[in-house]
Amino acid sequence: MKPRIVLALGGNALQKNGEATAEAQKKIAVKVGESIATLANEYEIIVTHGNGPQVGNILIHEESAATDKAPAMPLETAVAMSQGQIGYWLTQAINNAFVKQNKRKKVATVISQVVVDRNDPAFKNPTKPIGQFYSEAEAKKLAQQNNWVVKEDAGRGWRRVVASPKPIDIVEKNSIKELVADGVIVIAAGGGGIPVIRTKLLKRLKGIDAVIDKDYAAEKLAELVKADIFVSVTAVPNVFINYGLPNQESLHQVTASEISKYIKYGYFKAGSMLPKVEAAIKFARHGGTGIITDIHSLQAALNGKAGTIIKKQL
Amino acid sequence: MKPRIVLALGGNALQKNGEATAEAQKKIAVKVGESIATLANEYEIIVTHGNGPQVGNILIHEESAATDKAPAMPLETAVAMSQGQIGYWLTQAINNAFVKQNKRKKVATVISQVVVDRNDPAFKNPTKPIGQFYSEAEAKKLAQQNNWVVKEDAGRGWRRVVASPKPIDIVEKNSIKELVADGVIVIAAGGGGIPVIRTKLLKRLKGIDAVIDKDYAAEKLAELVKADIFVSVTAVPNVFINYGLPNQESLHQVTASEISKYIKYGYFKAGSMLPKVEAAIKFARHGGTGIITDIHSLQAALNGKAGTIIKKQL
Repeated sequence: MKPRIVLALGGNALQKNGEATAEAQKKIAVKVGESIATLANEYEIIVTHGNGPQVGNILIHEESAATDKAPAMPLETAVAMSQGQIGYWLTQAINNAFVKQNKRKKVATVISQVVVDRNDPAFKNPTKPIGQFYSEAEAKKLAQQNNWVVKEDAGRGWRRVVASPKPIDIVEKNSIKELVADGVIVIAAGGGGIPVIRTKLLKRLKGIDAVIDKDYAAEKLAELVKADIFVSVTAVPNVFINYGLPNQESLHQVTASEISKYIKYGYFKAGSMLPKVEAAIKFARHGGTGIITDIHSLQAALNGKAGTIIKKQL
Repeated sequence: MKPRIVLALGGNALQKNGEATAEAQKKIAVKVGESIATLANEYEIIVTHGNGPQVGNILIHEESAATDKAPAMPLETAVAMSQGQIGYWLTQAINNAFVKQNKRKKVATVISQVVVDRNDPAFKNPTKPIGQFYSEAEAKKLAQQNNWVVKEDAGRGWRRVVASPKPIDIVEKNSIKELVADGVIVIAAGGGGIPVIRTKLLKRLKGIDAVIDKDYAAEKLAELVKADIFVSVTAVPNVFINYGLPNQESLHQVTASEISKYIKYGYFKAGSMLPKVEAAIKFARHGGTGIITDIHSLQAALNGKAGTIIKKQL
């Protein structure tokens, strides 16, 4: 049995220098596809990915060009659109890497709904800015029309903010698990998943405008599909403490409790390295191996020679 | 073993009276989801769907709100986005119908690339209008900038036209087949699939701006997954000849060769009933049962009591 990995690709896995055309993003996907296809010799693989820049652009287009006949899609549906878009690019890149490497293997993107608790405290304090910038007056008018929360964003204008609740389940987990057990490379839970709640009385799924952190969603998926390894693939080869300072130190092999201390000391930035470290710790406490590394060091990190590798006990 | 059906849902399965908000489309999806969940007792089911109005609106938004930082996605990627969007709505509707019917069954949308021949004669004569209307001058300028073909559309303005090549393969066929064999209701090949070719020398997949007829793609999928029944679900309970005229006649059980004669006589409209009849004939000649009906008559048609049912031999 091959070990099973869940790879969470950061936003920079598809965009560089803000080049956002489909062509530029597909070109970057080619390299990612080749790394993944090479890993497929030794591992069962599920790929998740961020969608920040892509869903941002979808919302900008949807909202600024909306008409009565062609109304704007809401955020939850825009996440589904971005899963189709990025999933297609990654699927095709991996398909082509398999052709190049002369392998006959399958790849499939599964559109994924990620369940959050309708009482998640995050809904009381939306913090995640999305979509385009508005003037204060426009923002307040839209807030009233659409039942949005809007906030001033670091001097750059006003934006809609949404909640970032925690993932508690993934609706498509069993289909994903069956595909990966069958040797398919599966792309799933893109952009942290389409956020859905279960309604109180009837327990129906209902989409909700929110943004689920993609590392938390990927870690939850890794638990649900009983993966052995969870890797957050980011822009740096490993986690540092005092990053960028003269006393910078890189972390290679650490226990979950050791790196948890660094969180308490405030070493990791919220919305950046913090969620990756938290997700890797959660997975390590669950009994697996949590890794944080970049795409170039991925193979070496899986061999224990690079990356930050977090386990319950070393 | 349950018989395996491929259902091809027409555009009207999700939109009525041009109501194009996500909310209006999800509401219609609820009814469709309930019909499909009920059928799941007796059949293995793969659902395909049209995407005309949805991908049209995506293109309108992408093109009219494009900027350097947020460039427009091309048609092939827009198809992938519409698969995510509609697949999500249908998946959730079927999930909720299962909750309502107290069944524990799985549903999954698989993003699907449909291969066409790069030498398909359709590429020499693009006929399928897509996206928004332009003035003649704008259209000609865009045609030059983007290497588009543009045409005057029935006195309503100028539009881009693309080719409508025939599907020859579906990249994700084996993943789809494994899911459905495992009892999952699979939504696949939405909008006729993301059109891709195989490059000449390296045999790589490459997206191409084209529109694949959803009934032809669904029929090809039905062949590839060895379905027993292919159903084109449309706005009428069965096929008529002399539709709307005093001598209108409905067709119930017919052989492939009998209904082929009516095609020669010109009874069916291109881009409307013709592709459905052609797809059903192709599937019947392949040894299966081809059905054309509406969602209300679906169950009765599967029981041989309604719809137009096409077989090689009666």
